[in-house]
Amino acid sequence: MTAIDDFFSIIPAGGVGSRLWPLSRADAPKFLHDLTGSGKTLLRATFDRLGPLAGPGRTMVVTGRSHRAAVEAQIPELDDASIVLEADPRDSTVAIALAAAILRRREPDVIVGSFAADHVIDDERSFRRAVGEAVAAARAGYIATIGITPTEPAIGFGYIRAGESAGVDGAPSAALVREFVEKPSAKVARKYVDGGDYLWNAGMFIARADVLLEELAREEPELAAQIEELAEVWDESAQRGPAVDRLWPQLKKIAIDYAVAEPAAARGRMVVVPGDFDWDDVGDFSAVAKLHNGAHRGRLAILGTEGTVIADSASGIVVSQSNRIVSVVGIQNVVVVDTPDALLVTTTDNAQRVKQVVDAVRRSGNTDAL
Amino acid sequence: MTAIDDFFSIIPAGGVGSRLWPLSRADAPKFLHDLTGSGKTLLRATFDRLGPLAGPGRTMVVTGRSHRAAVEAQIPELDDASIVLEADPRDSTVAIALAAAILRRREPDVIVGSFAADHVIDDERSFRRAVGEAVAAARAGYIATIGITPTEPAIGFGYIRAGESAGVDGAPSAALVREFVEKPSAKVARKYVDGGDYLWNAGMFIARADVLLEELAREEPELAAQIEELAEVWDESAQRGPAVDRLWPQLKKIAIDYAVAEPAAARGRMVVVPGDFDWDDVGDFSAVAKLHNGAHRGRLAILGTEGTVIADSASGIVVSQSNRIVSVVGIQNVVVVDTPDALLVTTTDNAQRVKQVVDAVRRSGNTDAL
Repeated sequence: MTAIDDFFSIIPAGGVGSRLWPLSRADAPKFLHDLTGSGKTLLRATFDRLGPLAGPGRTMVVTGRSHRAAVEAQIPELDDASIVLEADPRDSTVAIALAAAILRRREPDVIVGSFAADHVIDDERSFRRAVGEAVAAARAGYIATIGITPTEPAIGFGYIRAGESAGVDGAPSAALVREFVEKPSAKVARKYVDGGDYLWNAGMFIARADVLLEELAREEPELAAQIEELAEVWDESAQRGPAVDRLWPQLKKIAIDYAVAEPAAARGRMVVVPGDFDWDDVGDFSAVAKLHNGAHRGRLAILGTEGTVIADSASGIVVSQSNRIVSVVGIQNVVVVDTPDALLVTTTDNAQRVKQVVDAVRRSGNTDAL
Repeated sequence: MTAIDDFFSIIPAGGVGSRLWPLSRADAPKFLHDLTGSGKTLLRATFDRLGPLAGPGRTMVVTGRSHRAAVEAQIPELDDASIVLEADPRDSTVAIALAAAILRRREPDVIVGSFAADHVIDDERSFRRAVGEAVAAARAGYIATIGITPTEPAIGFGYIRAGESAGVDGAPSAALVREFVEKPSAKVARKYVDGGDYLWNAGMFIARADVLLEELAREEPELAAQIEELAEVWDESAQRGPAVDRLWPQLKKIAIDYAVAEPAAARGRMVVVPGDFDWDDVGDFSAVAKLHNGAHRGRLAILGTEGTVIADSASGIVVSQSNRIVSVVGIQNVVVVDTPDALLVTTTDNAQRVKQVVDAVRRSGNTDAL
């Protein structure tokens, strides 16, 4: 396929993924791991997925300063102009809007698409088709998102309620967003899925950079102005540092859902393109196990040095990151994550509770392991 | 209490305890671990338990050459005459009968009592009372054993069927042994315990050394002759080495149950003294967990560096032998054994299957970890 001329992709690569501790941690966050067994980290797979859409040299990664070397090792193609290093994390609005503002200065009519660095998508053809429609909607002045057709009443994702067709040329399935809703209860999720007009919110945003920044300025004028001020000098190496030092600490931490998407939806400026492909945000080890074992509940997935895992009547997942022998006997849906300095033993049913363990580790003072 | 004058205790310290892998292993066998949290290894606790019975300097340890340093570190009181080093393991008959033969040459009328190095006994007063009766029966020419009054229909132990009273002075509860039976099925075990005349076989043997050796000579004349030949030169340092080199490889590997106890019982020469005290052979991690948690099924026992274990809704046992953080979330009756080169994750219900893991590790070629 041919790349989309006026499209530029943005990959915000942040977030530790604390439900994936002790595999994922501050100095080796989720996006730097190969959680699918594909041989690629999630970040690299995301970059490769966007390549055919945006074309060579047209993907920008936004990440923390401490991850610069790891990100560049994963994506040697990135030049200095294509990596935005954050002084410290300021949530998704700063990450995406700053990238958009920088790109708009370089290319006033650019359409940007932001895609998380640590999600998994199987059917790239369907993904590209959905992005194609989203770009068409963006050209028509909308902010577009891609909502995933739910395959089950998941309670770990937010949902998007689709309304009437937006009637955009080249985006036949784009519908106006009626509302964004938070992670639901199991009962509510069941209702959403049965109803048919709810989609999973995969956090993908496609818009003209100027439209995105206009919407932000309407809702968060101070933050928008600070971001514009940073973008103004970003490509001037002598001025960037002082501007970052001065402005960064003041930048408001706010998710783009609140700063842009929900207000835009309320004003009829937001559309959703349904994405009928397998997507997962790989939020916990239950998701990792499912990615590997699929419907085979009795299977034991092994990530890492397979040679040293010995299992007897066990199913679930073993992540082996040490050179040790890991033996698992007689536990179903087990999760064993063996790293040099920390071990996690749980089950897929308890995978969401790992965040509480991370909190306990923090309280215990063993912060080196986080 | 006063020690028994003519009594000498023998501690055969052998056996890896492969169901306790990876805690227990070739170079750190079960008897060298503190499995009760008492602060003492099982070997040291056994030695201390026998001290008041046999008196100072009257306990002999039989162990493998490779364990000499570790055994002496545990029991600095042992002099060279009180430690028998085996060239390689030859099962319990050689260990016990050789010690008995050596001791008889030093002290013709000696009564020996053999007690495994890796069992746990709580009520030492009752234990000593039982040994006292057994010694009285031994003086009367019997081979005595102590059978533990069962507290549950255990399937992990052999049983002893007690018959009529032996009518020995000083041993009012000593009864003739009708038979030894192997580990029973659950159904049979229930019958044994309900019947009331079956006791657990704790592998304790008390006899005059000469009686024990006579019984052995009757059943296994060649082995008995070889053992006597070794014992004859044992205290002559110049002759011991060559005799061991020559005879040791020929020594038959046979359990003392088959070579002595069962034949003696069949001839009416074996008595059992009931021992009404808590005893455990700590055969697997389920037993270790039970020793720590007692009847508290919801409790999580921690052996090792407690500071690094983080548990959330978990019960069972964690053995922490590395400096890592061990976190366990939402698994009941779990067994986690974390050592520097091997990890075991199972449940107490599967504790017996650990032996199969050890076999698998052996097949995998990772013999360093065994």
